[in-house]
Amino acid sequence: MTIDIQKADMTRRSFGGAGVPPSTRDMPIPLPSLSPIITQPTAIVYCEGNFAKIDGKTANGLVRHSQAYRVVSVIDSSHGGHDSGMVLDGVTNGIPILGSLDAAIAHAPSLPDTFIYGMAPSTGRLSTGDRGVVLDAIARGMNIVSGLHEYLSDDPEIAQAASERHVTIRDIRKPKPSKDMRLFDGSVAHVDALRIAVLGTDCAIGKRTTATVLARALTAKGIKTVLVGTGQTGLMQGAKYGVAMDAVPPQFCCGELEGAIVAASQGEQPDVILIEGQGALSHPAFCTSAFILRGSQPDAVILQHAPKRAHRCDFRDMPMPSPASEIALIEAFSDTKVIGVTLNHEDMSDAEISGAITAQSETLGLPVTDALSRPSAHLLAMVLAAYPHLQRGRPLAAV
Amino acid sequence: MTIDIQKADMTRRSFGGAGVPPSTRDMPIPLPSLSPIITQPTAIVYCEGNFAKIDGKTANGLVRHSQAYRVVSVIDSSHGGHDSGMVLDGVTNGIPILGSLDAAIAHAPSLPDTFIYGMAPSTGRLSTGDRGVVLDAIARGMNIVSGLHEYLSDDPEIAQAASERHVTIRDIRKPKPSKDMRLFDGSVAHVDALRIAVLGTDCAIGKRTTATVLARALTAKGIKTVLVGTGQTGLMQGAKYGVAMDAVPPQFCCGELEGAIVAASQGEQPDVILIEGQGALSHPAFCTSAFILRGSQPDAVILQHAPKRAHRCDFRDMPMPSPASEIALIEAFSDTKVIGVTLNHEDMSDAEISGAITAQSETLGLPVTDALSRPSAHLLAMVLAAYPHLQRGRPLAAV
Repeated sequence: MTIDIQKADMTRRSFGGAGVPPSTRDMPIPLPSLSPIITQPTAIVYCEGNFAKIDGKTANGLVRHSQAYRVVSVIDSSHGGHDSGMVLDGVTNGIPILGSLDAAIAHAPSLPDTFIYGMAPSTGRLSTGDRGVVLDAIARGMNIVSGLHEYLSDDPEIAQAASERHVTIRDIRKPKPSKDMRLFDGSVAHVDALRIAVLGTDCAIGKRTTATVLARALTAKGIKTVLVGTGQTGLMQGAKYGVAMDAVPPQFCCGELEGAIVAASQGEQPDVILIEGQGALSHPAFCTSAFILRGSQPDAVILQHAPKRAHRCDFRDMPMPSPASEIALIEAFSDTKVIGVTLNHEDMSDAEISGAITAQSETLGLPVTDALSRPSAHLLAMVLAAYPHLQRGRPLAAV
Repeated sequence: MTIDIQKADMTRRSFGGAGVPPSTRDMPIPLPSLSPIITQPTAIVYCEGNFAKIDGKTANGLVRHSQAYRVVSVIDSSHGGHDSGMVLDGVTNGIPILGSLDAAIAHAPSLPDTFIYGMAPSTGRLSTGDRGVVLDAIARGMNIVSGLHEYLSDDPEIAQAASERHVTIRDIRKPKPSKDMRLFDGSVAHVDALRIAVLGTDCAIGKRTTATVLARALTAKGIKTVLVGTGQTGLMQGAKYGVAMDAVPPQFCCGELEGAIVAASQGEQPDVILIEGQGALSHPAFCTSAFILRGSQPDAVILQHAPKRAHRCDFRDMPMPSPASEIALIEAFSDTKVIGVTLNHEDMSDAEISGAITAQSETLGLPVTDALSRPSAHLLAMVLAAYPHLQRGRPLAAV
């Protein structure tokens, strides 16, 4: 790990087990300080053939926001030589995309600490080619982080290689033993914090990104906010509280999410708890949104939608639902209200974004914005309009 | 295994793995036959302190219907000396309840083949006392079957004891490795058979029992029917197709159920596929009903309700929903229709049952009956009223 006195954001992660909320301090430390500040481990994010695509969403997320790791480069030969921020969002971020592990290692000032397998294929499995790259990273002495359903730590060849090379494997999706899991008991209803779930009309549509932008906007306004992660990407990014729900046995999903929310409430006494959505309540193949609604009993929901997406991302013959039908379904399924819609602007010009915001807002009678292309103040306003009592007027000390 | 020439129901189970649909022939064989007919293995069902209660539902189910095992006795010292059918349903069935493993073994003509841990505690875990009984059963040379989340085959002490004694352990809830699991792909929509899911307003309310009675009534009418099991009890009872859904990673739940339905369709070409419900769609702690609706895309739903149950069985402070609200929720959540309501008559006199049937039927405008206390012809009529084309008029040869 490198020492960086200028880095105030000193979130440290413990790496024991994927399902345990890491012990982390995420209070910003005022500068300067005489004691050495240890930063996050550095990481290369492997995303061959998938960066900026749906199956690369883990890498996409890590490149945009990462508290737990300092991402030094991305591997994807289809974009080699470009800046990852420019490819993803049209704005440079200083994180280059290289064509191979060799090139990525050569490019970094020193060997990066971690190799993050940054793809989220719907199969959840490792391809043969990728397997070779993982073994190569181990051979070079890099710790491995993976969000696959196929646990690398259970793979004999990979586990043995890691053991011999004295590197660690962290399988984000590997749950605790069932006997350590928690059943839902209704205690979430007694949590004081306002709970807002960010749901969506489809998978891979920007729910996590919107939730992250909102968390930062609320925090900057002096409204103490915790974002509870529900997927492997959010946990990799450094969500302090959360659980990778899609690997927990269904009987314990609501209970484990409730447990993460109660832990966040007790640990932080926040004003607001945001819950990262997964999938879509209307999605024919997944039910994680149902778990999130049941397990978090949110006071409100923000719904993420992509106006230009005609069909579901994993099911090309299934048309997308409309925001109106999704809102009706959410409000029928659980005792909550949708307070606004946020747009994913894929395939849209700026003028089209403005047009969609206006049109949707009129149709739905709700505030509508875009967390990435519009000021975060608009997203913040959506929450404050529904919950004016949150406004405190005391921003945190600038860092 | 004992040889029984007179037993025509010769369903044989393969015991490799809990998640694999067993290879079974369940065609009745005409009598008499000169070749020996091998019957099911005999079993003792262990249900200490819980027979006829909610947490004993596995034992309750096995005592009422069991194709896979011939149940010779039940262990529950709180009902020792009584007939299990009399305790459960007021009708003797010849299966005695004994007070201990010793007594149960002494009572049987020969050592029973199998010890079935017949309890379904919401924690899914083995108590210390029960552990001792399991080890004792192993020591006596009995194979073990369990539906706990805590896999007995992963318990070092139990696994070693079984290995040394050359007996098997079958963990019904132990899923296949993730890499062998199936994602939902929409093929269920192309299955020809009429699909009817039996859902409920609560857990442990009689969904499986109603589905089993309906399957038999349809089959007797010459309407080829397969009941797809979705829980450990249904699989233990001998459902040929199915998956213990509450132990499958959520990402694969819809796909695994879809797979079981497609397999049933291809293997049997049935007229009707019944799907065993789990939990309730409105239940605050579980989402298995959502998975069942998404994974099976049923044409119709039958809703099981208990008019005298005031609060949820696992959450004493949560009031039960009404059938009307549950029907509205089911029809909002998925593209299906509820064609009737079936009652669990717990705590009801026969006059109260009749009153409830009449009242509910008027309120809901739907057929209402009780699968156990009323003729199965009424339940059959509920389906034929909605789907008259099913009627064939050619009953199977009597067995």
